[in-house]
Amino acid sequence: MNTLYVIGIGLIGGSVARGLRARGKCGKVIGVDPNPDNLAHAIRLGVIDQSSSLDAITPEEGDVVLLSAPVGCFRAILEGLAPHWTSSALYTDVGSTKGSVVAALVSVFGAVPANFIPGHPVAGAEQSGVGASSGSLFEGRRVILTPPESVLPGMEFQAIQLWESLGASVSSMSADEHDSVLAATSHLPHMLAFALTSMLGQRDETEHIFRYAAGGFRDFSRIASSDPVMWADIALANRQCLLDCLQQYRHTLIGLESAIEHADQSFLRSFFSEARAARERFLQISEK
Amino acid sequence: MNTLYVIGIGLIGGSVARGLRARGKCGKVIGVDPNPDNLAHAIRLGVIDQSSSLDAITPEEGDVVLLSAPVGCFRAILEGLAPHWTSSALYTDVGSTKGSVVAALVSVFGAVPANFIPGHPVAGAEQSGVGASSGSLFEGRRVILTPPESVLPGMEFQAIQLWESLGASVSSMSADEHDSVLAATSHLPHMLAFALTSMLGQRDETEHIFRYAAGGFRDFSRIASSDPVMWADIALANRQCLLDCLQQYRHTLIGLESAIEHADQSFLRSFFSEARAARERFLQISEK
Repeated sequence: MNTLYVIGIGLIGGSVARGLRARGKCGKVIGVDPNPDNLAHAIRLGVIDQSSSLDAITPEEGDVVLLSAPVGCFRAILEGLAPHWTSSALYTDVGSTKGSVVAALVSVFGAVPANFIPGHPVAGAEQSGVGASSGSLFEGRRVILTPPESVLPGMEFQAIQLWESLGASVSSMSADEHDSVLAATSHLPHMLAFALTSMLGQRDETEHIFRYAAGGFRDFSRIASSDPVMWADIALANRQCLLDCLQQYRHTLIGLESAIEHADQSFLRSFFSEARAARERFLQISEK
Repeated sequence: MNTLYVIGIGLIGGSVARGLRARGKCGKVIGVDPNPDNLAHAIRLGVIDQSSSLDAITPEEGDVVLLSAPVGCFRAILEGLAPHWTSSALYTDVGSTKGSVVAALVSVFGAVPANFIPGHPVAGAEQSGVGASSGSLFEGRRVILTPPESVLPGMEFQAIQLWESLGASVSSMSADEHDSVLAATSHLPHMLAFALTSMLGQRDETEHIFRYAAGGFRDFSRIASSDPVMWADIALANRQCLLDCLQQYRHTLIGLESAIEHADQSFLRSFFSEARAARERFLQISEK
């Protein structure tokens, strides 16, 4: 890889740049960001070598263009990149939703270009910003790629190598499957944590209940510290899958409420036992 | 304190016994438990000195009787203790719900005895059993006491000293207030984690989605590993407060769903921002 272009300098884009540079996997790193302070900060930290504007990006063979901006900005970014688009560079992204990225690509190019490999490093952190970036963020994490049917195999191979060099384990699936899986395992839990923390925050103002909340609440609510703007973006970008999950969750909750209302001890015991068994299974899988 | 009687040898009862003994705060420790293996295990671990049966418990002045069994068993335990009840010993408990303990006391004695100080160490752990007990479990944790109006001040003072000697910080409130606060900060989050983990567990059987769940889900679901029998007990013992919280939560969730459905970005941003601010406040309070 020659030059790495990072469009959107935050936790994830900064961590990719740091990680590739630390491993000697890229030459120059050029950053693009609407916020000049952010660019100056990234240069001071040594995350990027220089800044650029979107319309000055003219990638060549062997270069990588990484879109690491909020998914809501993708269409505008792709329109900015289109005049100098080259089929010999690898284009990829790190957006948390993939159907919305495909839709933005289709709206600008008519189809997903054969050298654009949508990607998603499942490396959530409640921190954000280039200041929190780290070259080891992806070690042992999963990255999901959703290559288009028309993909150039050489480009897909290069994207896999990029992430594996950062210590990640790479899987591929369709964009639809990605969005359905992530709605359940990430976007839904974030909504539930935001909702609980917001509800208790209102009660705390009059009752001081947070004084009596323990470690369980601390862990449960950690993801409610995530970036509000990014999560509004994700919730809307994966709207239909997330609404399906929220509805299914509400139905599950209604079943549980009904069992509590009718003092159905045996239902509750088996419901909680199934949940505990499922979590054991999750822990076994995630330790593999 | 002379002899400590521990009725129900699990994580909490075992941890109180270990902690008081390590600090030289009690003489003999006598354990009662329906499971003989549990008693033998506790003796081998040095948590208790000897076992006893409920009807052989004849406390004397300066002794402490600690009920650390599931709250659903309290009425039967109190009936067993009643024939040898003495007003010069301190009786207390560690149940996660307090209205149900008051109800059991009223049903057996007609009122809460003046030397019974209901208590709750807010020291959740997803582990259970005497094997996981630790004398330092309560260090820096909160303990809520719900003394009856008729309380003997000397008994209340002794209960406060017991917990403070274990490193806990002690607050007092009414049993009703306790149950309302704990429903929101502990019982509701447990129900939400059990429901999510159970729902995703069913999907995982066909879609292997747990492979793609990250750290956010791990933290969020930790409390779904809690003991199913104990939590069925807690859910029913604090049924009305918990149902109120579940209903309020469902309404919050419906508001969030509606905003996602109508793509109301500004509602989502401010909802998530309020949640994040509430969590910051919780962290500040819990670090005090």
